[in-house]
Amino acid sequence: MENERLKKQIDFIVEIDKLKKICRQTLLTDGSRNENDAEHSWHLAVMAMLLSEYAKDNGIDVFRVVKMVLVHDLVEIDAGDTFCYDEKGNEDKAEREKKAADRLFNILPSDQASEIFGLWEEFEERATPEACFAAALDRIQPLIHNYHTNGHTWKLYNVPYDKVIGRNKPVEEASPVLWEYIREILDDSIKKGYLKK
Amino acid sequence: MENERLKKQIDFIVEIDKLKKICRQTLLTDGSRNENDAEHSWHLAVMAMLLSEYAKDNGIDVFRVVKMVLVHDLVEIDAGDTFCYDEKGNEDKAEREKKAADRLFNILPSDQASEIFGLWEEFEERATPEACFAAALDRIQPLIHNYHTNGHTWKLYNVPYDKVIGRNKPVEEASPVLWEYIREILDDSIKKGYLKK
Repeated sequence: MENERLKKQIDFIVEIDKLKKICRQTLLTDGSRNENDAEHSWHLAVMAMLLSEYAKDNGIDVFRVVKMVLVHDLVEIDAGDTFCYDEKGNEDKAEREKKAADRLFNILPSDQASEIFGLWEEFEERATPEACFAAALDRIQPLIHNYHTNGHTWKLYNVPYDKVIGRNKPVEEASPVLWEYIREILDDSIKKGYLKK
Repeated sequence: MENERLKKQIDFIVEIDKLKKICRQTLLTDGSRNENDAEHSWHLAVMAMLLSEYAKDNGIDVFRVVKMVLVHDLVEIDAGDTFCYDEKGNEDKAEREKKAADRLFNILPSDQASEIFGLWEEFEERATPEACFAAALDRIQPLIHNYHTNGHTWKLYNVPYDKVIGRNKPVEEASPVLWEYIREILDDSIKKGYLKK
């Protein structure tokens, strides 16, 4: 292809197809199989469209949230999915993911590499109201899936209530309304035996 | 849940999890399995972020394109994926999909149901520059997948070059640069025996 810029963009588009093969711990809500990162990212993007009215900060840039959630897990193509309650795996997660970002994003023309790198860093650092809201969605979605699969991941790894609450604290910061919802379904999960105190 | 509006939104978010189980004809680029609609929608959304500079109409609303591609296949939860070269299946496609849209989108609060319905109709009718560009991406992505899987779907259903060109005409309208790219990989597909004239 003569168009060097487009060639780089297409190479990246082909490369990120691999995200569809990165398995998460979460099951689909019907419990039939594990979810993958591409599906998860799509789900978060639609949630951003629908739930942004609950962001604590008025007037957040919803498109920025959508862009962040669309690319937030790309680094897992190289670094793999690190289970959020896996303490050992989380020790070198940042280093592994930074290396992945360097390789992957630089497939793109440099201006777009910088843009995607910026979105990914903003998400990781929760540096802006948009990133805080994106992080909140990234907590809520697997929680909904766990609730609908009778606490599958919580039971599998014996994750107690306090750890789930701790993990979901970013929601409290980003959206009081969604935090209330989280508390409600966690209380119900205790009642139903999906989760233990 | 006391918050009726949020309850509807969460019900919708859970319902659309089913998009992850709607199989397409296209394989992943590594040929390992069929792609599903949720993964496909995610891929298009990232492509919209990266390729909008090639839209024939300057200054298109990229967020609108992203929103359209994120929701464009939701109706397939009820209506199923209709293969684009399946003439019989396409006869009642519009009717089946309209019924699906009515059921699915109305799970949402009415203002959001209208918004999603509007985005879906705009996409279907290719009524705006944004919808034309979204439709072009929806053509290009499976074409890239077919090219990378040695023409899997074209061979499986004996789809000839002329039909593929016809199917991809919306790209010519929406983006001359991307159309040139399409012509290039289709010519190469002929050379490599992935596709027959």
